[in-house]
Amino acid sequence: MRTRAAVAVAAGKPLEIMEVELEGPKKGEVLVEIKATGLCHTDEFTRSGDDPEGIFPAILGHEGAGVVIEVGEGVTSLEVGDHVIPLYTPECRECEYCLHPKTNLCQSIRSTQGQGLLPDGTTRFKMLDGTPIHHYMGCSTFANHTVVPEIALAKIDKNAPFDKVCYIGCGVTTGIGAVINTAKVEIGSRAVVFGLGGIGLNVIQGLRLAGADQIVGVDLNDDKEEMGRHFGMTDFVNPSKIDGDVVAHLVELTKGGADYTFDATGNVKVMRQALECAHKGWGESIIIGVAPAGAEIATRPFQLVTGRVWRGTAFGGAKGRTDVPKIVDWYMQGKIEIDPMITHKLKLEEINHGFELMHEGKSIRAVVEF
Amino acid sequence: MRTRAAVAVAAGKPLEIMEVELEGPKKGEVLVEIKATGLCHTDEFTRSGDDPEGIFPAILGHEGAGVVIEVGEGVTSLEVGDHVIPLYTPECRECEYCLHPKTNLCQSIRSTQGQGLLPDGTTRFKMLDGTPIHHYMGCSTFANHTVVPEIALAKIDKNAPFDKVCYIGCGVTTGIGAVINTAKVEIGSRAVVFGLGGIGLNVIQGLRLAGADQIVGVDLNDDKEEMGRHFGMTDFVNPSKIDGDVVAHLVELTKGGADYTFDATGNVKVMRQALECAHKGWGESIIIGVAPAGAEIATRPFQLVTGRVWRGTAFGGAKGRTDVPKIVDWYMQGKIEIDPMITHKLKLEEINHGFELMHEGKSIRAVVEF
Repeated sequence: MRTRAAVAVAAGKPLEIMEVELEGPKKGEVLVEIKATGLCHTDEFTRSGDDPEGIFPAILGHEGAGVVIEVGEGVTSLEVGDHVIPLYTPECRECEYCLHPKTNLCQSIRSTQGQGLLPDGTTRFKMLDGTPIHHYMGCSTFANHTVVPEIALAKIDKNAPFDKVCYIGCGVTTGIGAVINTAKVEIGSRAVVFGLGGIGLNVIQGLRLAGADQIVGVDLNDDKEEMGRHFGMTDFVNPSKIDGDVVAHLVELTKGGADYTFDATGNVKVMRQALECAHKGWGESIIIGVAPAGAEIATRPFQLVTGRVWRGTAFGGAKGRTDVPKIVDWYMQGKIEIDPMITHKLKLEEINHGFELMHEGKSIRAVVEF
Repeated sequence: MRTRAAVAVAAGKPLEIMEVELEGPKKGEVLVEIKATGLCHTDEFTRSGDDPEGIFPAILGHEGAGVVIEVGEGVTSLEVGDHVIPLYTPECRECEYCLHPKTNLCQSIRSTQGQGLLPDGTTRFKMLDGTPIHHYMGCSTFANHTVVPEIALAKIDKNAPFDKVCYIGCGVTTGIGAVINTAKVEIGSRAVVFGLGGIGLNVIQGLRLAGADQIVGVDLNDDKEEMGRHFGMTDFVNPSKIDGDVVAHLVELTKGGADYTFDATGNVKVMRQALECAHKGWGESIIIGVAPAGAEIATRPFQLVTGRVWRGTAFGGAKGRTDVPKIVDWYMQGKIEIDPMITHKLKLEEINHGFELMHEGKSIRAVVEF
């Protein structure tokens, strides 16, 4: 079949909107009509050429929602008409990782996904001239139709609006999951969140959901304060307006250090601050942000020997087929909010403008609707 | 009263054996006759002058066992004749830290202890000419008699031999506790231990006690292999004899990385190796060793984002008054071994020779008996 897609033809180039050829689903695969997709910093990291593992040409996008159009041989858990969110971290429920209680990093299709291919080692997309186009993070949601392995699709409530819950495919789950699955924040905790972008705001609402008593947001941009407070932030700190050391300021503000801290900036210096403002004895710091290639975190080992714990999280520690439908339900029940974070709606033709909004810091999430 | 002690008169100087004046126990304090004390690297770190927080003159030593001779006003949990192990990490059972489930770092007498003083801000020791002598880590077990706060004494089995269980005052508890309290190692785990000295061997026997399936020991000295195997090590790796990267070698040896890794070297480069040979998704690395002042650990944040956890431990995460008596019982019941690790017995007059043995790598533990 033919479908429309925004294609990353080469590193650093704007995406090109074009008709592409899409082969139907093979064994264990599903054809999905994408109804909406968010634009995430990770897409831009690859588009820009900063991602050393970027492969071109490719159809980017990994934060989508849509409808099952056709199922391949052997698919048993989904049928035509089901509403789904594609998962860049699948959940096969059979591999060593899926069966381990401490991780969500299913490895069953990892190697082909990393090569921009489906599990059989081939791509379903090509240009009209026959040039193969790579998949991206196993999702490729910047196409109106895409083919995804069954194990990488979460079946969700049919009443959920695509243009909102697509965000659960990455940002919402990453932020809320970091709190609930990775940090396992307890009621009454004090927390500090560095970076009040699309991930940080979801960390904040995750903390509110978990019953945190104090939620400190840290950002260099004062404009972020209002939205932070809307989602549950209790204190705002702009490091550029603090006299002296921001770590000492945060330790004092949290009465000895935070029980949990989160880096949602991707800046390795901030990651160190996040660790060091965690409470002596028991404070845990969770790295969510993706650092530039080659960047390293550092601290004195004394910080750990005196009880701080340094962790990271990917996709919020969520096992996608199990956890993503629950988060969609939380949205439908009003336990979490998404609507105020979807600041811009675009057509596919406007997708490059979405990346401009991201760079200008004007959007929390821009969503493309098909 | 007068007692005999090895006094650190100045940084970098040999200890001097002398008679000293010891004032009796004040409110909440206990006079202990030390029967035996181990010599630990931390004592040598301070004696040598490498410890930036070292205070002189002082009576070092923090790994002792002895008998209660006199109790001060208000002491209720100990009486004359009780056998005790002094605790450099006390357990008041009242402070915010003691009441927190995730830490053992009781802070109730932290500030005075760090200044070489008892909780009332004074010292009980002085030279015969009246010069005050500082306490050390709240213990000062290089004296035949010492005064210790009640909350810093663990009451132990009267049948336990002083010259063996004194080692539970630091090394044994630090190593075994890192496994049991900090890492919480599960039956069937794979583990890697860097450094097969007095701490590393206790990590190994802690892993055996916890039911680990694979216990890899790493040391540059082949002579350490025999003792490592005696305590439960299943594989030995000498990094100087490995072609290529030791991390890659250890990942392969542990079939994908270890569930738990432990640094007992104090070398920050080794700490990084320990983290990076932990298993993707769930491997945890525990720093036990004390690094040189100012040294920093570093890694790529990707190591944490893909599921590894970086922790540290002090005194093996043990709450001393609660946990140390249990470990003494384990020794008496034969669950753990100490005797083969006590490689040298010395008289107080020979204490400087003990530090020479330590530097030459000839001792695991030298113990001074009074």
